[in-house]
Amino acid sequence: MPTHPNLEQFKEAAARAAAERVQSGMIIGLGSGTTAAHVTRALGERVKRGLKIVGVPTSNQTSKLAGELGIPISNLEEHDAIDLTIDGADEVEMGTLHLIKGHGGALLREKIVAHASKRLLIVVDETKLVGRLGIRESLPVEVIPFGWRIVARQLEHMGAKAALRRDAAGQPFLSDGGHYIVDCTFPGIAAPSELSGKLDRIVGIVEHGLFLGMTAEVIIGGAGGVTSIQRENFQARI
Amino acid sequence: MPTHPNLEQFKEAAARAAAERVQSGMIIGLGSGTTAAHVTRALGERVKRGLKIVGVPTSNQTSKLAGELGIPISNLEEHDAIDLTIDGADEVEMGTLHLIKGHGGALLREKIVAHASKRLLIVVDETKLVGRLGIRESLPVEVIPFGWRIVARQLEHMGAKAALRRDAAGQPFLSDGGHYIVDCTFPGIAAPSELSGKLDRIVGIVEHGLFLGMTAEVIIGGAGGVTSIQRENFQARI
Repeated sequence: MPTHPNLEQFKEAAARAAAERVQSGMIIGLGSGTTAAHVTRALGERVKRGLKIVGVPTSNQTSKLAGELGIPISNLEEHDAIDLTIDGADEVEMGTLHLIKGHGGALLREKIVAHASKRLLIVVDETKLVGRLGIRESLPVEVIPFGWRIVARQLEHMGAKAALRRDAAGQPFLSDGGHYIVDCTFPGIAAPSELSGKLDRIVGIVEHGLFLGMTAEVIIGGAGGVTSIQRENFQARI
Repeated sequence: MPTHPNLEQFKEAAARAAAERVQSGMIIGLGSGTTAAHVTRALGERVKRGLKIVGVPTSNQTSKLAGELGIPISNLEEHDAIDLTIDGADEVEMGTLHLIKGHGGALLREKIVAHASKRLLIVVDETKLVGRLGIRESLPVEVIPFGWRIVARQLEHMGAKAALRRDAAGQPFLSDGGHYIVDCTFPGIAAPSELSGKLDRIVGIVEHGLFLGMTAEVIIGGAGGVTSIQRENFQARI
């Protein structure tokens, strides 16, 4: 993938546009990762100017950042219906708006919060748009540490190159929930729904990074400015 | 359910018969719960008399017991194919040999180990046999603590009475994997495969207590003695 010197600027511009979608009184799901952090910072600025929101963070890291910025935070015990969740993504498939998420390591909580949300708004730089999922990024799969090798072997049988994610010290990376992440490289994912169903049925898999049929809108930052894609006739699920 | 003064004797007799199925050289999955503990103790006696096995425990409690009894123990990192797993069950459906498991709180590791096994041998007292799953016992569902209320609400929408399991101090019970257990009472489970598929797809559910098509043999202790049921043409999956 070509690195682009202006990628952070693109993300930040898109994040600012996304933060403008938020209105006072809303319960907002706060995503994780570098792009979502731009959104949280933009929301922090608006809160300082009087915006009244409650944020539900999807990771310990986001929780810390939101706290520092003075955004009131809560959780799903207090708020089990969220008005809008704004999050990043590793890949966005054109047309379907299906996503691959989880390279930040928070896919499980991100997925739970997204499912509890009336709308999911995704913010990306333009390099994240793909014609088919799995072309540029691997698919993160969150697994139970006990028996993870058996799961990895099953993933290999399904055609993936499966690699246990490790931290800087070479130890297995632990998610906020205390699970491992196996990054699966597929040669493009032609049938994401089918793959999602297969992964759901494997014992030892907690969750995976395919977010299908969940995205209401994508805001994209790029060299030409900020654009957005909305799904027509999007039906909130809750 | 009528309590039976001889239930422990029935379990113990069946457990001794199950332990006789084990041969030297085998890697044995060691189940959890009161009946599986009888099996582990019977295996401990055989090990003292010279049986050479390696046990893969399905819970911290079983690991401790096996260690005390002098059974060499290992894990799925070392042994990813298990010759035989012997475990208890909360309900065994006649005919299909489908199971409900998990009232001991170890369903996730039990399921991972059972899936990694060439044969799953179930040991029960006769009160555990049912004509249809879900009639006498609730179905345990292991969930991510983050957002568990949303999962419980989805389970209620599916027709279950969903109750968070609590410990003696009234705090949420934590599984060995650090998850919660939601016990779901259904008015009988008419279509276990369909229910299993629905549960697999719910974000926030780690695993559930339906063990379908996994049992090779059931050994039953009762007032009339010890009997066994085997599935004809059982195909090991690995």
